[in-house]
Amino acid sequence: MTQAQPVATLVRGRYVLARVEYDGTARLLSNAAVAIAIDGAISEVGDYDDLRSHHPDADVIGDGSHFILPGLVNAHHHGRGVSYLQLGQPDGALETWLNLAWGRKPMDSYLMGLYTLMQQLRSGTTAVMYNQAGPLAEAEGTLTAFREVGVRTAFSIGFRSQCFLIYGDDDAFLASLPQDVAQTARAVVKGSRVALEDNLSLVLDLHERFEKPNPQTVRILLSPSGYHWADEDTLRRIVDTARDNGMGIHTHVLETVYQRLYANRTSGQSPVQRLADLGMAGPGVSYAHCVWVTEDDIRILAETGTSVSHNASSNLRLHSGIAPVRAMLDAGVNVGVGTDSVGINDDDDMLQEIGLSQRLHRVPGLDNRHVTPGELLHMATLGGAKALTLNDQIGSLEPGKRADIVMLNWDRVSYPYLDSGLDPLDVLVTRARGRDVQTVLIDGRVVYDNGEYPALNVPAITMRIQEHLQGDPPPDALARRQAAQTLDSHIRAYYRDWELPEGPQFALRNARL
Amino acid sequence: MTQAQPVATLVRGRYVLARVEYDGTARLLSNAAVAIAIDGAISEVGDYDDLRSHHPDADVIGDGSHFILPGLVNAHHHGRGVSYLQLGQPDGALETWLNLAWGRKPMDSYLMGLYTLMQQLRSGTTAVMYNQAGPLAEAEGTLTAFREVGVRTAFSIGFRSQCFLIYGDDDAFLASLPQDVAQTARAVVKGSRVALEDNLSLVLDLHERFEKPNPQTVRILLSPSGYHWADEDTLRRIVDTARDNGMGIHTHVLETVYQRLYANRTSGQSPVQRLADLGMAGPGVSYAHCVWVTEDDIRILAETGTSVSHNASSNLRLHSGIAPVRAMLDAGVNVGVGTDSVGINDDDDMLQEIGLSQRLHRVPGLDNRHVTPGELLHMATLGGAKALTLNDQIGSLEPGKRADIVMLNWDRVSYPYLDSGLDPLDVLVTRARGRDVQTVLIDGRVVYDNGEYPALNVPAITMRIQEHLQGDPPPDALARRQAAQTLDSHIRAYYRDWELPEGPQFALRNARL
Repeated sequence: MTQAQPVATLVRGRYVLARVEYDGTARLLSNAAVAIAIDGAISEVGDYDDLRSHHPDADVIGDGSHFILPGLVNAHHHGRGVSYLQLGQPDGALETWLNLAWGRKPMDSYLMGLYTLMQQLRSGTTAVMYNQAGPLAEAEGTLTAFREVGVRTAFSIGFRSQCFLIYGDDDAFLASLPQDVAQTARAVVKGSRVALEDNLSLVLDLHERFEKPNPQTVRILLSPSGYHWADEDTLRRIVDTARDNGMGIHTHVLETVYQRLYANRTSGQSPVQRLADLGMAGPGVSYAHCVWVTEDDIRILAETGTSVSHNASSNLRLHSGIAPVRAMLDAGVNVGVGTDSVGINDDDDMLQEIGLSQRLHRVPGLDNRHVTPGELLHMATLGGAKALTLNDQIGSLEPGKRADIVMLNWDRVSYPYLDSGLDPLDVLVTRARGRDVQTVLIDGRVVYDNGEYPALNVPAITMRIQEHLQGDPPPDALARRQAAQTLDSHIRAYYRDWELPEGPQFALRNARL
Repeated sequence: MTQAQPVATLVRGRYVLARVEYDGTARLLSNAAVAIAIDGAISEVGDYDDLRSHHPDADVIGDGSHFILPGLVNAHHHGRGVSYLQLGQPDGALETWLNLAWGRKPMDSYLMGLYTLMQQLRSGTTAVMYNQAGPLAEAEGTLTAFREVGVRTAFSIGFRSQCFLIYGDDDAFLASLPQDVAQTARAVVKGSRVALEDNLSLVLDLHERFEKPNPQTVRILLSPSGYHWADEDTLRRIVDTARDNGMGIHTHVLETVYQRLYANRTSGQSPVQRLADLGMAGPGVSYAHCVWVTEDDIRILAETGTSVSHNASSNLRLHSGIAPVRAMLDAGVNVGVGTDSVGINDDDDMLQEIGLSQRLHRVPGLDNRHVTPGELLHMATLGGAKALTLNDQIGSLEPGKRADIVMLNWDRVSYPYLDSGLDPLDVLVTRARGRDVQTVLIDGRVVYDNGEYPALNVPAITMRIQEHLQGDPPPDALARRQAAQTLDSHIRAYYRDWELPEGPQFALRNARL
């Protein structure tokens, strides 16, 4: 609590969305303000006129026309701002799509960190679950970019020990390939392999250097890339390391049906059950995707308090399916919202992502309930904050929390007419998009305002980024891209006899007969 | 053909998408231009430098940086620009949602026509299948707005003879309701009833007055609102009238599962089979939605040459489901794209709608093909044009067709980097949205340019619209709204024992067990 600190700023709005509960009930104030102490913490939230009279010397941001909400939390992201598509990796089914990354142009992680964070800030995201997929050396640049832009992060570096090419025995698969493709694929796998010790020692070092001085802003998590991408010894080592150092864990779970079938074929257990048995479940743990969870899995997620990141756009773009979010919420699972760097409009707009999720879970059947606007806003604020293990700091606008705030141009959202009987949260989720974000604050400081980033030298950054992006990918990248394209049909052949489930789905969308 | 006409204008682009075939193969020219004759017809499409040297006196629009494509065709729309949500009608399942329209603020059809057409133009739509749902008197204003803004239309006025409140016997349902609600509902139904003669005579009059002088721009179609909303005598009368006057037909078919169940319970036949038997199928006929078509229905649609409008956003927002578009395309059904006035971002942005459709039909299973960007662009151009019975005039940029053209700011779409190996159509569908539309031409005239509408007095229109929109809905509308809200639970109860299909779906999205 920060009662001792003087109030420096009042952020004033027509609406202030102070907090949304798990069940979607909201504390929404009209003609209200957020009072921010000089140290960047929220000191009070309440009626604007009252706050103004108590704090006559405070700066006032906003003329009373905006919709004020907590900074949005992107609960799953790997990105660069310059999208995978832009880098030459068109959408496809995850199992073949991942390899197309081999042919991307190499990028500087610091510059690309600046770019993606500026892009996310301008659509209202102030905290990002960042799961690094590239080489270890990228971490320093990415975390430096986070520090400079000011966006909070729970940062992890995905570790893989197996299943680099297919869910199964890479060596046997390599042996089945034409020799030239096998050679390239083998080299890529070799280049991607990192010793677990190297991953863990870097992550612990980042934990010391980036999290400990600034735990309100940075969390360093551990990360096996996914259940299927790590052998059991690795999973156990990561669980032990997390426990010994008081760290959280982020991983991919059941993104695609093939991941589920792989688990069935190997352990015979569901990945969710297996991870829970190994101790990789609980309040500090979050799973990205969970499209292919069963009713039993959902019960385990709820019982263990494990968080899930729902990435609707990604799950469509990469042919993964539609996660059973309604069932997860009904069971009590904590769910956040992530763009996974492949938002529906290729720009990591979290408001667009929430809007897509709202539509996607409106299913036929008059007795089937949808995910409400309030539930979605909880997911994108407190739900995500919990997944990032930052929910003591952010996710709502309440005394003692950090002042991470988004101001929406509500005049624009409601132009030219808005019925006075509507639920403002429904209007927000249906109509507000990144373009409507006018101002963003982090720790009470304006970090984005109407196209400008006051703390950044944007012309210099833009020039460096544009210089960096010049030219096509180098020949070796293009050769790897071609190999990945050739590999496509071999991967499809590998999975061809894996039988897809034929039982009931969570929702009815159409009927063949 | 228009060889005799001098070329007045060259529209120049980095890319010119001249035509997209049904199978998605495209004629895409680089550094090209569209030559437009003085009468607004396209005379040539080809290399810019060649065209420039042949037509040195022509005006040139574009500096060679844009992506040029045919004007988009919105294949299903009822709207006002001010959305249903804005007017106080939040999303819901169609069967209860429709009645919430009772409580909307009454609107002037001319002003609202201007508003929606300006909104659609700025996101690249130049032709609209407009199905009027309001009173007959609205038609004149709407068609006048189309004429003034210049957007092409296939216009129809939906006619209902039955099932005003539920799919079944309205009178029996009314008798089951509490008296006050029944009274309001009965009054609304009475007020909505129109004699078929009155509908037909107005439509034939509009056909004389709006289509005949200007058949390149306006088509007047007949429209039973939907299979379930019209008795068989009505359907036969409409088929006869269409045949006698050489007119097309537009109607709603199998939007929701309850419409399918209703048909099962009454005729025992699928609506698609029944309509085909009645003669309401064929190249001049289009069905909106078709979410709940079966494999048999799809075969009939293909065999009869009936068009379908796919309205992905609407089908999510109104809990209808996901239409089996891949199966329809594989069978050879002509499919267009419509926003149905409930696009995902509530703004009728056709590029956004295409982008949503692209994602929605990427389903799990490595052998399941998606709907390609080329197929989607065919749907949104020639596919829609065919549904509107305007495909001899528009839908592609070819000699003899009208010069309806969209110019996208491609520098913005591809900022800050774009791999040179990508398919530009994939980039367009993934990344281009209404915000990227820079200039729109209809009949070779610029009708929208970078926020401006050269032929319209926008300040005057805006002032009139804002004046018109002032104030809450009148008390009688609010009373009807309350009645509709009360009716909600009664409607749900009516359908509660209608058993939903349990057979196979067209796609696998997740698995409960």
